[in-house]
Amino acid sequence: MLNLQTHTEHFTNPLYLESGRILEPYDITYETYGVLNDDKDNVIVVTHALTGSHHAAGMYEGDNKPGWWDGLIGPGKAIDTDEYYVISTNVIGSCFGSTGPMSQTKSGEAYRYKFPVVTVKDMVKAQRILFERLGIHRAHAIVGGSMGGMQALQFAIHFPRFAKKTIAMAATYATQPWAIAFNKVAQEAILRDPEFQQGYYDPDVIAESGLSGMAIGRMAGHISFLSHDSMQRKFGREYKRDDGLYELFGKFQVETYLEYNGYNFTKWFDPLSYLYITKAINIYDLGRGFDTLDEALSKIQTQLHLISFSSDMLFVPDEMKKIDSMLKASSRVSKPRPRS
Amino acid sequence: MLNLQTHTEHFTNPLYLESGRILEPYDITYETYGVLNDDKDNVIVVTHALTGSHHAAGMYEGDNKPGWWDGLIGPGKAIDTDEYYVISTNVIGSCFGSTGPMSQTKSGEAYRYKFPVVTVKDMVKAQRILFERLGIHRAHAIVGGSMGGMQALQFAIHFPRFAKKTIAMAATYATQPWAIAFNKVAQEAILRDPEFQQGYYDPDVIAESGLSGMAIGRMAGHISFLSHDSMQRKFGREYKRDDGLYELFGKFQVETYLEYNGYNFTKWFDPLSYLYITKAINIYDLGRGFDTLDEALSKIQTQLHLISFSSDMLFVPDEMKKIDSMLKASSRVSKPRPRS
Repeated sequence: MLNLQTHTEHFTNPLYLESGRILEPYDITYETYGVLNDDKDNVIVVTHALTGSHHAAGMYEGDNKPGWWDGLIGPGKAIDTDEYYVISTNVIGSCFGSTGPMSQTKSGEAYRYKFPVVTVKDMVKAQRILFERLGIHRAHAIVGGSMGGMQALQFAIHFPRFAKKTIAMAATYATQPWAIAFNKVAQEAILRDPEFQQGYYDPDVIAESGLSGMAIGRMAGHISFLSHDSMQRKFGREYKRDDGLYELFGKFQVETYLEYNGYNFTKWFDPLSYLYITKAINIYDLGRGFDTLDEALSKIQTQLHLISFSSDMLFVPDEMKKIDSMLKASSRVSKPRPRS
Repeated sequence: MLNLQTHTEHFTNPLYLESGRILEPYDITYETYGVLNDDKDNVIVVTHALTGSHHAAGMYEGDNKPGWWDGLIGPGKAIDTDEYYVISTNVIGSCFGSTGPMSQTKSGEAYRYKFPVVTVKDMVKAQRILFERLGIHRAHAIVGGSMGGMQALQFAIHFPRFAKKTIAMAATYATQPWAIAFNKVAQEAILRDPEFQQGYYDPDVIAESGLSGMAIGRMAGHISFLSHDSMQRKFGREYKRDDGLYELFGKFQVETYLEYNGYNFTKWFDPLSYLYITKAINIYDLGRGFDTLDEALSKIQTQLHLISFSSDMLFVPDEMKKIDSMLKASSRVSKPRPRS
């Protein structure tokens, strides 16, 4: 059975961040599926991408679509909830229950720009603290894609004994300028939107009317999620049936698609969270805190699976291949030589 | 010698556009380099890209940089002004002297949205009319890249006897959704900027303070001009020296680059022209008006040179290869068979 449950844990101990700043107190909201066994070791952790949430599978009453990985998580599915206890947490900095820039500080105001910059490593550290509280000291696997894959890799380096298997998809060893550039367009579009009010917007107003700056940024994001060829296959040069070809605002189908996804997005995602999480993605770098990337990767003890997509424009396969070839090279070097 | 000259020709006859609309009267501003021979046939036409102008070579007093193709055009250069008379016109719809959306209608007001949608074919038609007036009935070559390449190809199809050689670079047979999507982000960012005032902005104010919507759109454009790999080579993960890694607004070099190019652009380009010219690029399709693309290409008589760049993300080499293979296939078919 799926056994979908939502929880929020409150932490009063300070969370020491990579930046040297402190987050205190903080909440982590998470979903669980399946049943935890007595040894508390039948755990699979799934980690979400930029705009994801803890809601990875199943449906709540009134929902018209299930969680973002419902195709993979459930009874008899690839991540089998009949066998495993699956945990999906909302990352700190996000806007779906875990502490983020629009959460209240101790004084009762929203943090907004007072919220500290968090990193992917910080997100992972907070999850590890949650798991400790739940008495979970090891997992069967950690699985995630894009920023979820970055979390999985940070887990593998900083908590090497935690997960037996790690599956990182569509991720990288460090975010490259192509991805940073797409994030830049989105950040700039948000910051320049007068409705954003330099960060002092009314979240209810934004949720109601949408923030066109964030919609525009999201359109750029949607370009980066597809490739030249996949867009060609998906849309071709199809034009909206009711629009005239020579009308200035007549639209191709691809334009309608971007508009729909862009403007819809602004109704359910918080702009300050978007700024903070894209920042976390931009400064993500597995090698930080180590002398070299090699040294960082040498910490890994988990069974590591790296999956890239040849059509992925944001995190191209070569970036994962770099991790793979470094691991292979160092395993050759560190092998004890047979005595002769 | 370069013999740089600027001219503007005024036309009172109506220009019949592809859309069925009429532009009347209209101006075409153009530059010439070199000297026209007595037969008026030592002509090379260069055609500009989206944000280009007629100013392709040389410098005017007070300029700190030369025209956009100064490296190619001049005495002894690839396009040798000692031998050829080079003409570079500003396309209609643009904002550097030829009639565009901010030009005045007969009533003395700016067209703004009353300006008709123009196509790349219309741009070419207007140029052909200019050349007729100048007594120039044939050219040695037409050369252009990106939208300039589209113009060169339209010339080859619609005025097949005009140019002996045609060199189209970084262009396509029809604009694909990937390029349309980038234009969409830019268009949307312009339209949603309150300073744009729904098209009724004061051009002097815009030129002075810039239009952040257009800057954001231009940033998206700059992403499309580079590829994942070239960005990696150009910027890597270099961070601005004075910015802190954990400052929310701390910047990578690639971000500074996009900001500079984006905001600088808004000081010299008109937003309505941007909307109209990106529209022309979006609806560019060599096959329109013919039963098939094959039929369109069968009109070509010029010596055609197609040049693509393997790193070009907007107009990928496969698009030019399609033209090439269609031309090769049809030339095989139309060859008279030897009688046996």
